[in-house]
Amino acid sequence: MFFASDNTGPVHPKIMQALVAANDGYDMPYGVDGPMERVRDQVRETFEAPEAEVFLVATGTAANVLSLATLTQPWQTVFCAPQAHINEDECNGPEFYMGGAKLTLVDAPDAKMTPDALRTRIEGEETRGVHGPQRGPVSITNVTERGTVYSVSEISALSEVAKSYDLPVHLDGARFANALATTNASPDEMTWKAGVDVLSFGGTKNGCMGVEAVVLFDPKLAWEFELRRKRGAHLFSKHRFLSAQMAAYLEDGLWLQLARQANAANARLCEGLRDTGGVRFLHEPDANMSFAGWTRAGHQRLHEAGAKYYIWEGQLDGSDPQEELTARMVCDWSATDENVDQFVELVRG
Amino acid sequence: MFFASDNTGPVHPKIMQALVAANDGYDMPYGVDGPMERVRDQVRETFEAPEAEVFLVATGTAANVLSLATLTQPWQTVFCAPQAHINEDECNGPEFYMGGAKLTLVDAPDAKMTPDALRTRIEGEETRGVHGPQRGPVSITNVTERGTVYSVSEISALSEVAKSYDLPVHLDGARFANALATTNASPDEMTWKAGVDVLSFGGTKNGCMGVEAVVLFDPKLAWEFELRRKRGAHLFSKHRFLSAQMAAYLEDGLWLQLARQANAANARLCEGLRDTGGVRFLHEPDANMSFAGWTRAGHQRLHEAGAKYYIWEGQLDGSDPQEELTARMVCDWSATDENVDQFVELVRG
Amino acid sequence: MFFASDNTGPVHPKIMQALVAANDGYDMPYGVDGPMERVRDQVRETFEAPEAEVFLVATGTAANVLSLATLTQPWQTVFCAPQAHINEDECNGPEFYMGGAKLTLVDAPDAKMTPDALRTRIEGEETRGVHGPQRGPVSITNVTERGTVYSVSEISALSEVAKSYDLPVHLDGARFANALATTNASPDEMTWKAGVDVLSFGGTKNGCMGVEAVVLFDPKLAWEFELRRKRGAHLFSKHRFLSAQMAAYLEDGLWLQLARQANAANARLCEGLRDTGGVRFLHEPDANMSFAGWTRAGHQRLHEAGAKYYIWEGQLDGSDPQEELTARMVCDWSATDENVDQFVELVRG
Amino acid sequence: MFFASDNTGPVHPKIMQALVAANDGYDMPYGVDGPMERVRDQVRETFEAPEAEVFLVATGTAANVLSLATLTQPWQTVFCAPQAHINEDECNGPEFYMGGAKLTLVDAPDAKMTPDALRTRIEGEETRGVHGPQRGPVSITNVTERGTVYSVSEISALSEVAKSYDLPVHLDGARFANALATTNASPDEMTWKAGVDVLSFGGTKNGCMGVEAVVLFDPKLAWEFELRRKRGAHLFSKHRFLSAQMAAYLEDGLWLQLARQANAANARLCEGLRDTGGVRFLHEPDANMSFAGWTRAGHQRLHEAGAKYYIWEGQLDGSDPQEELTARMVCDWSATDENVDQFVELVRG
Repeated sequence: MFFASDNTGPVHPKIMQALVAANDGYDMPYGVDGPMERVRDQVRETFEAPEAEVFLVATGTAANVLSLATLTQPWQTVFCAPQAHINEDECNGPEFYMGGAKLTLVDAPDAKMTPDALRTRIEGEETRGVHGPQRGPVSITNVTERGTVYSVSEISALSEVAKSYDLPVHLDGARFANALATTNASPDEMTWKAGVDVLSFGGTKNGCMGVEAVVLFDPKLAWEFELRRKRGAHLFSKHRFLSAQMAAYLEDGLWLQLARQANAANARLCEGLRDTGGVRFLHEPDANMSFAGWTRAGHQRLHEAGAKYYIWEGQLDGSDPQEELTARMVCDWSATDENVDQFVELVRG
Repeated sequence: MFFASDNTGPVHPKIMQALVAANDGYDMPYGVDGPMERVRDQVRETFEAPEAEVFLVATGTAANVLSLATLTQPWQTVFCAPQAHINEDECNGPEFYMGGAKLTLVDAPDAKMTPDALRTRIEGEETRGVHGPQRGPVSITNVTERGTVYSVSEISALSEVAKSYDLPVHLDGARFANALATTNASPDEMTWKAGVDVLSFGGTKNGCMGVEAVVLFDPKLAWEFELRRKRGAHLFSKHRFLSAQMAAYLEDGLWLQLARQANAANARLCEGLRDTGGVRFLHEPDANMSFAGWTRAGHQRLHEAGAKYYIWEGQLDGSDPQEELTARMVCDWSATDENVDQFVELVRG
Repeated sequence: MFFASDNTGPVHPKIMQALVAANDGYDMPYGVDGPMERVRDQVRETFEAPEAEVFLVATGTAANVLSLATLTQPWQTVFCAPQAHINEDECNGPEFYMGGAKLTLVDAPDAKMTPDALRTRIEGEETRGVHGPQRGPVSITNVTERGTVYSVSEISALSEVAKSYDLPVHLDGARFANALATTNASPDEMTWKAGVDVLSFGGTKNGCMGVEAVVLFDPKLAWEFELRRKRGAHLFSKHRFLSAQMAAYLEDGLWLQLARQANAANARLCEGLRDTGGVRFLHEPDANMSFAGWTRAGHQRLHEAGAKYYIWEGQLDGSDPQEELTARMVCDWSATDENVDQFVELVRG
Repeated sequence: MFFASDNTGPVHPKIMQALVAANDGYDMPYGVDGPMERVRDQVRETFEAPEAEVFLVATGTAANVLSLATLTQPWQTVFCAPQAHINEDECNGPEFYMGGAKLTLVDAPDAKMTPDALRTRIEGEETRGVHGPQRGPVSITNVTERGTVYSVSEISALSEVAKSYDLPVHLDGARFANALATTNASPDEMTWKAGVDVLSFGGTKNGCMGVEAVVLFDPKLAWEFELRRKRGAHLFSKHRFLSAQMAAYLEDGLWLQLARQANAANARLCEGLRDTGGVRFLHEPDANMSFAGWTRAGHQRLHEAGAKYYIWEGQLDGSDPQEELTARMVCDWSATDENVDQFVELVRG
């Protein structure tokens, strides 16, 4: 019963097989391997973006910080939600890679920025000439860190605000596949057609071992990105083992299938919890992550049974922490009905 | 009628004379000049801090960013008010000098942080192990950027919160003299006795040409500070001209006398404006800076008469921007009764 | 015939099996996985260093830049050979991670610094007080970038110079196993007993997929290192797949066996080349990398046969580039006698 | 007898008067003062560069590091002489401001790079694709740190090498006026007509209190420079006092007159020393700085008489440090014949 994160689960067998297959013989290092050529083609087809440039790194934080550094000058500020991974969970990595640029936090109930709140924050910067930080990119996370999902039109609305100030848009898509699975949008619709300039396209949380693609819809950024990746120590010598994962992930829609499995497991989990009668949710379940509160006794039963999940530091409205704690639960592709149902039964007591 | 800032006014004659006097003959460069020895003694006496180390720089931003960099690791976050100069008016200088550390904004009505709000923000960081930013120093500004003043006990209360988490305290005292003039506190009471570890002690806004002292109450920080100052290109070769200003500024209490003059001018200005009947204030005048709103016609008369001040981007409660605009007015030591009264008369119309 | 680098070869089957085995079930992310506990024990035993702290990253550059950043202040300079990977092949990664510290290049014929040359360079810095860069760590590479090997006593001699100035010592051991295989020294003898404070301990070039251990012989550096790793985006979520590689690598001496195979292949290659009569060497073959020159016709035959290796930009003494080009050849554990002999035959013509 | 540096001397009376005059009344802060408009015009006329942009800072290091940061990407390397101030005397300031870019040292006997040596170093970088540092600007110092002077044609020859690789050229002109006084070249000839893109134009060492101009011959760099200056904490609030110095300095050719005085004093000093019979020079005196060796007894006499100058860490060919030490002597505009002659007499003994 591992619901702590979608990074606690196993690598999908097809991806593991691809790694074994890539180990047959020799290949040139540092990204000029054969599988990388295939990945480039796959990504361009998947996103209907024949000009896009694609680079692989091994961590989601690397994808984010290198993307932002490529889009941002050190005297600028990035507009994002307070709950954004780049603000809360990267130990100042973005500021480090951007050479000391900063983040301006945009009000975001349930971790989703609204166009109005974004406009307000943008208006609040660059009003003091050379003195204040200059306006930089807007960074959107989908699926958000609270498990909510932006629709394509919501992303477009944020991009329109950004574009009206000539600001580029970054999409942190560590769970991009899950967002597509929720919305049924196509990859192109949710990215460049919605105004996204650079995408962090996650693999690790969705069945890979450790690979993320950065998709640059503007190929002019490519060389700078390559230099930043190398300088950041993120260029793999045996790069073909990144390529092999990503190629298998994109093959025959495996990536979307795995995301659908994860979302379905989460839906089953939430339905089950709701059925118990004593569980309240932070918001409707959208993708593969949920926040829900129940009795301390329920948590105790789960703990004794070895269930893994995090207690959320935040709190549900009207909840009494003496009585009730809120769980953050994440499902990955490998979550079984059996495990989900067992978890629910333990909450029910 | 220059009320735009306390940096638009002249250098006080005694300080100018000191510069002329320092020009008589030769002296060794880079901070080993004769006047600097005197400054060190003066600061130690003024603050009753015989162990303190003192360094001079030429801009307030330099004093702040070097102080913060000396207190902060790159993976930490500095707790400060949203209105803080380090957040709004230093073009990411703090983040640059701190190697990519960040700022966590603490709620601060009228630009004054409360101990509770500070505690809440500190509690909100460092809850995610290695993932989130680590807790760093607390930076307090006195006089604040809205012209309000912390009392000694208010500073102590913030320091106590900081110290309960083992966090150091920085005081941005670009207008430190004005804060003392308002509170009648002594320099030691408002600094190390109130828990302040490093002080940016302003001279430029209060009658100097361009000099700020950084006072390190913990002398162990001195060598690192010196290296950071040099690396930041802030070590003056003809340093004696910084020393000479600061020595004259501290001589016979000139610095406090000038601050009292500035505060008195502001009090007269506010009283006069209040008497006109049509003026509302953001808050009670505390030191030498005020925010007040009146009719557009009044602003028009001032504009035509060549008065200099900034229109504040913020807004008074219940004010209609069609009818009324808010002025930010700052008095320095040189403001004359005549100028102040003339300004008031123009508002009155 | 892949002799381009020891990063073009396959992952050793035992290591690949360990990855497959690690994929059975769930484990906690970010370095608290089960296999990591085993790795920590293995490293401590291998180095007879029960206090040492161990962290895993995926690239050799990451191991180096994080190690150096932990040892170096931004105003210091690192002493290293001009040929060092950190100087030539990391795209300013060290300077980036060290916050703008610099490298001082020490004369190093055949890429090996001498104690005298090191002392001269150390003496040349920090003679200008706050003006010049301050002295920082000494970084030694073993096996060097020219394929030469420092003996234990040579490393000790460099460390003694460093220690006489209170400077720490970093060892870039991307090919550390090969250096041990050449010298028959034990891991402890070549590291902490010889004055090394931090070791970049390579796995990737010697049969792993992508893993390097940083060994901190001074455990007080551990927490800073962890924060720097996270901030640099080098902390893996599915970290157990790094651990699994390293655990298998260290199991039953596999790491040393693979290095011996690589060194033996290189010895055979060099012997064969020497036997052809027309080949000259940059220096005696030491470990698993060699530089040798022969006729352009020989290179042409190899090229047509699809052999992979780099033409060295440098030049052998007395060599005429019209006639002769110099090859850089690297053998990894997987090089077969057949491939080696075929290569030699093509040179012979 | 202050020959320690041209920064130990007094401010020229005309410049001091300009400061006093600038103190009459109010002016707007942060570089929009009246005197700055005049400076801009003066610089454009002086350099026959009507498009050039001009910014003032207070230290030579600030001028250099901001100029280099504006010209250099963090993954690039700057080509300069080993003796360059940016390498030896700015405590890693350039690396800090450039975000971790590095310096590649070009062989430079007597501190003057030759075109061949420059070409060799440029050829040596950027041969390793994304792995090595990328080629960045060439930085030339004139007058050099050894007191030698590049002629216009020598600067042009270096620029031609730079331009053949599309690299920009920076001129560190902390003693630019002295270089013109030596060569009789015009300001335009030695800068943009010789391929210089950005000039650090010194005032402090030549009679100012503390002001340097950065001249951007390509005005497109201006906005980035302004942001970097503010972010580096080098934008003065009471900026008019920088402007006033520079305006007086440029008025009626005062700057060139002062440089001629300094050069003449140095010539007299060297002639006198040569006449004593026992003095040897590092090279022919070129501008206002000389290196010469004489007996320890001579140094002792000077020391007892309170003469100020530095003992050079380097050594003259064939000199025995037991017998003889080398002095570095610098004359500024204020050096009197009397002082010079007294110094010489003390060496003579």
